Amino acid sequence: MGACRVSFVVHVIGLLLALFGGLMFADAALFPETARIFLTGGVLVVLIGASLALSTSARLHELNRLHAFLLTAGMWIAAATAGAVPLWLWKLSPADAFFEAMSGITTTGSTVMTGLDTTAHGILFWRALLQWIGGIGFVVTGLALLPILRVGGMQLFRTESSELGEKEMTSTARFAMASFLVYTGLTVLCLLTYLIGGMTFFEAICHAMATLSTGGYSTSDSSFGHFQSGFLQWSATLFMLAGSLPFAWYIRVLRRGDTASEQVRMLVLSLTIATLLLTFWRVATAGAPIFETLRLTAFNVVSVVSTTGFATTDYTTWGSTAVVAFFLLTVVGGCTGSTSGGAKVMRWIILGRALRVKLRMIRDPHGVFALRYEGRAVEPDVLSGVISFFVLYAATVFGLAVILAFHGLDMETAVSGALTAVANVGPGIGSQIGPSSTFADLSDPVKWELSFGMYAGRLEMMTVFVLFTRTYWREIA
Amino acid sequence: MGACRVSFVVHVIGLLLALFGGLMFADAALFPETARIFLTGGVLVVLIGASLALSTSARLHELNRLHAFLLTAGMWIAAATAGAVPLWLWKLSPADAFFEAMSGITTTGSTVMTGLDTTAHGILFWRALLQWIGGIGFVVTGLALLPILRVGGMQLFRTESSELGEKEMTSTARFAMASFLVYTGLTVLCLLTYLIGGMTFFEAICHAMATLSTGGYSTSDSSFGHFQSGFLQWSATLFMLAGSLPFAWYIRVLRRGDTASEQVRMLVLSLTIATLLLTFWRVATAGAPIFETLRLTAFNVVSVVSTTGFATTDYTTWGSTAVVAFFLLTVVGGCTGSTSGGAKVMRWIILGRALRVKLRMIRDPHGVFALRYEGRAVEPDVLSGVISFFVLYAATVFGLAVILAFHGLDMETAVSGALTAVANVGPGIGSQIGPSSTFADLSDPVKWELSFGMYAGRLEMMTVFVLFTRTYWREIA
Repeated sequence: MGACRVSFVVHVIGLLLALFGGLMFADAALFPETARIFLTGGVLVVLIGASLALSTSARLHELNRLHAFLLTAGMWIAAATAGAVPLWLWKLSPADAFFEAMSGITTTGSTVMTGLDTTAHGILFWRALLQWIGGIGFVVTGLALLPILRVGGMQLFRTESSELGEKEMTSTARFAMASFLVYTGLTVLCLLTYLIGGMTFFEAICHAMATLSTGGYSTSDSSFGHFQSGFLQWSATLFMLAGSLPFAWYIRVLRRGDTASEQVRMLVLSLTIATLLLTFWRVATAGAPIFETLRLTAFNVVSVVSTTGFATTDYTTWGSTAVVAFFLLTVVGGCTGSTSGGAKVMRWIILGRALRVKLRMIRDPHGVFALRYEGRAVEPDVLSGVISFFVLYAATVFGLAVILAFHGLDMETAVSGALTAVANVGPGIGSQIGPSSTFADLSDPVKWELSFGMYAGRLEMMTVFVLFTRTYWREIA
Repeated sequence: MGACRVSFVVHVIGLLLALFGGLMFADAALFPETARIFLTGGVLVVLIGASLALSTSARLHELNRLHAFLLTAGMWIAAATAGAVPLWLWKLSPADAFFEAMSGITTTGSTVMTGLDTTAHGILFWRALLQWIGGIGFVVTGLALLPILRVGGMQLFRTESSELGEKEMTSTARFAMASFLVYTGLTVLCLLTYLIGGMTFFEAICHAMATLSTGGYSTSDSSFGHFQSGFLQWSATLFMLAGSLPFAWYIRVLRRGDTASEQVRMLVLSLTIATLLLTFWRVATAGAPIFETLRLTAFNVVSVVSTTGFATTDYTTWGSTAVVAFFLLTVVGGCTGSTSGGAKVMRWIILGRALRVKLRMIRDPHGVFALRYEGRAVEPDVLSGVISFFVLYAATVFGLAVILAFHGLDMETAVSGALTAVANVGPGIGSQIGPSSTFADLSDPVKWELSFGMYAGRLEMMTVFVLFTRTYWREIA
């Protein structure tokens, strides 16, 4: 039985690899210049994927939680590895290729590549495609798999059963299909808007994919700053926000016209307040022109909070207040069930309310205070999931920062690098990894470590760390 | 009834002020050079204290939790204000004097004063005395008052009743007296050791008081680095550690010879591991001499973790790894019921075990796992107290860092300044507030903000923040 389930896990991973091989063939067909690279990569990945899929069983009675962990963790490693193959065949070192692909598939958007403006289109399209696939991949993982794994308080969104039987597979598939349609629709809308704003078709499709996936890969070294158009920047701001809203919410709005959502309201409110405060501060202290400042601030605040990581300007030159503000914004994150990474608004709401309840209980130890979210009572295991998430999040960021510092990074780079990786944002702080530079100059070990940080952050830590416990492997055998 | 209790709170604060006035008279008697300053200050403070005490009622039936909050918060503000009076009369600005006194009374040890080697002895003695009084003050607050307030999980150490009646007052007083004797005994032992090591009597008494209180005020600008004696530095390492052990543990060891304590074991273990790792790293990478490195590392690790903040060397020049390591050590803290500030080992143990329980529950959702500390089951309200503490701790540090950044501090200074204040350690990181400089050059608003940080950190946040809620004042009236 155990072997049968592991066999199914390998089968799904094989299919995923075959899908990536297929995408490489598509890239080869579209861009003749890099066709040889993508054909070679495609053949390689399809062969491995097909042999894995064919040698294992597609039959599944039910998938228990232990195997769902393995499936989730394995799929993302496989996707990053497959995504790295063409980049490695092209010219990147293994560390660079894996970093770039992991950054893409986790929709982080940190890059080790420079000279983007003259890079072959096939490569740029592949990067954008990785983000786009990663974005929808996480929507499905985040709302279909993580709740079943009871990771990070996501069981708030769980389906009835904790085993993935036939029936749940169907409803998950239906949800995945609806999300995919919404995602594709929004991407096409964004593409059209970008075309109207004056981008070339290639720029528009690459940026549309990087925008909706809240990934942030650009086709230019100056990122979105390449487009000095107010219309384009405001459009991108809107579509980055769109990517960080819950896809289940879109489906609900489209089906029933029901727009109520505490997460969405809180996210929009926080973004507005942060933007207005920073704009006011910039106008008041630096005498910056008000409308340009509002546009730049809104863009960069939404870019960081939605964990996109596009940059229009190097906000770290705005002074230390802005640096600290953007550093803190990195930890917010978008909504659950969106393409955003980070801690996510839902968890902040629950944490804040739990603290308020605690303060009330200190005043009145015998009172009974309910913790509610979206009108429902929050159960203790959800709250403890949320709190565990924050603890593991902090521990991962700090642990990673220490390891990075041991490799010689200064404190600002180490801490902001660890945070931007785990939160899947993209740019860090400091001259080395700030919004106007790349991760290219870091050493190979540092790149592997940051890749792990992006991976752990994307899978909300718990999914990854459970695999590191001995008992897990004893139980799954 | 409400008025009667508030009256008692004011009465106790009046007595405390009178005590501080008395200490000023003592300082005046000992050091003729600054006698006028301390006489003036003493008369002022005694007059205010006596009039408060005489105009209010000393009668207490029972003190409920709401009033215990007010008492705790009020006593520390009163002590800092009284402590600032002679410094202000001497020559410091109000912001400087309050900062210096708050830093003393909270045993933080951040200073705004330079030229310590030539400063009048009366002033230096006063600084050391503030720390010494603050140290024992917190032992009593931490183990007698905070558990009753149910703050930060301290109810693990609570007495039977949550009201402070006659009987509990007696047992608290007895505990306070025993702690005071242990504290005085250790201080005298430290004084004698320092004398043997070659300090002058004045240096020895000031440093002994600053060591046992884990405060860290020195009589020299080069802090403990003034004494280039291996014996003195190892002695200080030992006595700083002694100050960060629970006083209740000493009492238990002396009474029953029972040395078992998870906190003590874990603290000593962590200190040993951190020291050995950093020493190994320094020896391996910089080829530093092994025994000198071990001594310097042990001293500075114990200094930071015990939240003393003495420095023998500027460890921030050891490279970014050391900077990050010491930054992280700042968050550890000593044991509960000691003179140490910071998050405290007990809380880390409980947090770590709660996380382990959570990981086990993810693997086996139907299992029952017990969370134990010192052999006893940890109740849910203790766990939630511990977690609330960490959340408020992080929120206070980040909030303070943002405010400091708004006053123009760079990110490293803002974040490490906020952390070192809230954790009551002393030195920060960066050229401005690092171990080899002082807080003198900061602006007045920044000094007030850091003073608040030290105060909130010392009272474990909750005690202070409860006073900021409107409901509190409605209920206490």
